Amino acid sequence: MLERTIAAIGPLDVAAMTAAGDLHRRLTKPAGSLGALEDLSVRLAGLAGTCPPPLPEPAAVAIFAGDHGVHAQAVTPWPQEVTAQMIANFLAGGAVVNAFARQAGASVTVVDVGVGTPLPTTPGEPGPATLGAPRLVTANVRPGTRDLAVTAALTRDETRAAVETGIRIADELIDGGAGILLTGDMGIGNTTPAAALIAAFTGADPAETTGRGTGVDDATYARKVAVVRDALRRHAPDPADPLGVLAAVGGLEHAALAGLILGAAARRVPVLLDGVIAVSAALAAAALAPDATGAMVAGHRSAEPGATVALHRLGLEPLIDLGLRLGEGTGALLALPVVTGAVRVLHEVATFDSAGVSEK
Amino acid sequence: MLERTIAAIGPLDVAAMTAAGDLHRRLTKPAGSLGALEDLSVRLAGLAGTCPPPLPEPAAVAIFAGDHGVHAQAVTPWPQEVTAQMIANFLAGGAVVNAFARQAGASVTVVDVGVGTPLPTTPGEPGPATLGAPRLVTANVRPGTRDLAVTAALTRDETRAAVETGIRIADELIDGGAGILLTGDMGIGNTTPAAALIAAFTGADPAETTGRGTGVDDATYARKVAVVRDALRRHAPDPADPLGVLAAVGGLEHAALAGLILGAAARRVPVLLDGVIAVSAALAAAALAPDATGAMVAGHRSAEPGATVALHRLGLEPLIDLGLRLGEGTGALLALPVVTGAVRVLHEVATFDSAGVSEK
Repeated sequence: MLERTIAAIGPLDVAAMTAAGDLHRRLTKPAGSLGALEDLSVRLAGLAGTCPPPLPEPAAVAIFAGDHGVHAQAVTPWPQEVTAQMIANFLAGGAVVNAFARQAGASVTVVDVGVGTPLPTTPGEPGPATLGAPRLVTANVRPGTRDLAVTAALTRDETRAAVETGIRIADELIDGGAGILLTGDMGIGNTTPAAALIAAFTGADPAETTGRGTGVDDATYARKVAVVRDALRRHAPDPADPLGVLAAVGGLEHAALAGLILGAAARRVPVLLDGVIAVSAALAAAALAPDATGAMVAGHRSAEPGATVALHRLGLEPLIDLGLRLGEGTGALLALPVVTGAVRVLHEVATFDSAGVSEK
Repeated sequence: MLERTIAAIGPLDVAAMTAAGDLHRRLTKPAGSLGALEDLSVRLAGLAGTCPPPLPEPAAVAIFAGDHGVHAQAVTPWPQEVTAQMIANFLAGGAVVNAFARQAGASVTVVDVGVGTPLPTTPGEPGPATLGAPRLVTANVRPGTRDLAVTAALTRDETRAAVETGIRIADELIDGGAGILLTGDMGIGNTTPAAALIAAFTGADPAETTGRGTGVDDATYARKVAVVRDALRRHAPDPADPLGVLAAVGGLEHAALAGLILGAAARRVPVLLDGVIAVSAALAAAALAPDATGAMVAGHRSAEPGATVALHRLGLEPLIDLGLRLGEGTGALLALPVVTGAVRVLHEVATFDSAGVSEK
């Protein structure tokens, strides 16, 4: 399934991109005056292979949740149980991602790909009928990773299972009509494997890729950097073997997000990346299939320093930069109207000719 | 009317801001993890004087349109008639501002405060009935300003009339239920007076405040800087006399936008600023009533360099920075979901207690 998905990922369609650029020059606005939105809409035309590309509607957020053996190294002050508790909060509609998803009209799918503590049983959110309640998909590969400070976080088979779960979720959401996928994540401790993945794939120093996550103190931060540095020394992950990197120092939600991205790219549907967890997964996806970057849109620049390192390597400019470091998919949801607006211009704006507006 | 409006503008409510900060610390997210959105929501609580502040809905875009005598100095390659032609495009729903307003669910009001050529007669847009067609308000103070390279652009009475038109529009929109006002502008040549206003109010050199507007060539750009520099020398506008500055080197849409901002601030309703025209007007509003900055939200950072100079002086950080330089209100509309999302968090997100989520 992974190999078939990778094989289906191809380059952007140059003819559609040229057509979108030409259309932009005929619309009633100074050429180039929509800045990054013009480039984005041209790229989405190339992804769709048609101009204008379809409006990215409806939007579907997929939140992959997992726990982390490295929690034992005290890299975060939050108890591991919060992962499961926050899933209950997502399903009850009480988290920030729910508020932003309701506003954006996006569906929310929570995927337990590796939560380590029992999930509270909770009814779905009543919520607006048109959106439907947040949905829980159970696809638990194992109850949390092993401690990457001690051993490989995952086996190769576990890693592949998580990646293929992500591909399957992408297919299901797109089959259900989604016009754009948004990445979300939940996992106490998951900025530590993200920092390790970014260092492994880019060669950057762990001090540049490790941040304070949910807001750790100086001592915890120093410990976190040391854990990442030691893990890279111990496992010496080879960036030419992306599954091996994910297995050594990744997380189940990171692997599943890499799969979601590959699945979206194979279907030529855009995938809007959230924060540092998403971009660490995107590096893995790009290592597996370089053309997958064509489907990626960077929603925002996380406050986590590793996010900037990863975005630079991916060649992506984020749409929003407001110091967010929450995860869940919140930064991607804030950026969604910008993506939709960029495409909408190609659908709805009059040309100089049709509107009777003089050119310069 | 102007004096009464200025007198009604007061400081932010500290108790409401404290309550919003306290509430943020109880919501199910790491403290501070929503970055600039937390600061923004706290400020909007202070503006409303209550926590949570009302959701900024519905949104109303007011596009003030005017022409400019300085067009005679060849500061732009676009014919002056384009101002009126674009108004027709707005009313027909064919411009970028219309596409973004439909997406955001915002109404559009076009105010002819000083267009210099006849307005084409055009029916309103059919459009979604819930939003209503874009509306044209005729409040033409004079058919374009005088050439600021030769004489004062406006008399003091004309300036006051335009400012009071802006106040009146703010009152009408808020009386009609608007929860947030968005600034829009249309006026071929209007980045030249904006650059002059920003230089006059901040003391910055015209070379720092003048940009390429809709995209002028090197020769036109050099001429534009020289026009702004000469105008400031000729008129020596006194920043302590804001109406005098607007009269000497401003525009009718700039003056009206200053009034709109003051009108919103007096009603304690947020006003979302678009690009360089808006922030030049915001400097005038802040000079007339320093507390008016409390009602201002910077939608985006225009590619025009003067916008950054003005935002810095106003102490505002823009929500979006994507190289836009279109005007019309487009940058403000793109930022609107960020503002709404920031407030929505205070309304809808569960607390640690209520959701049963452990704290660190």
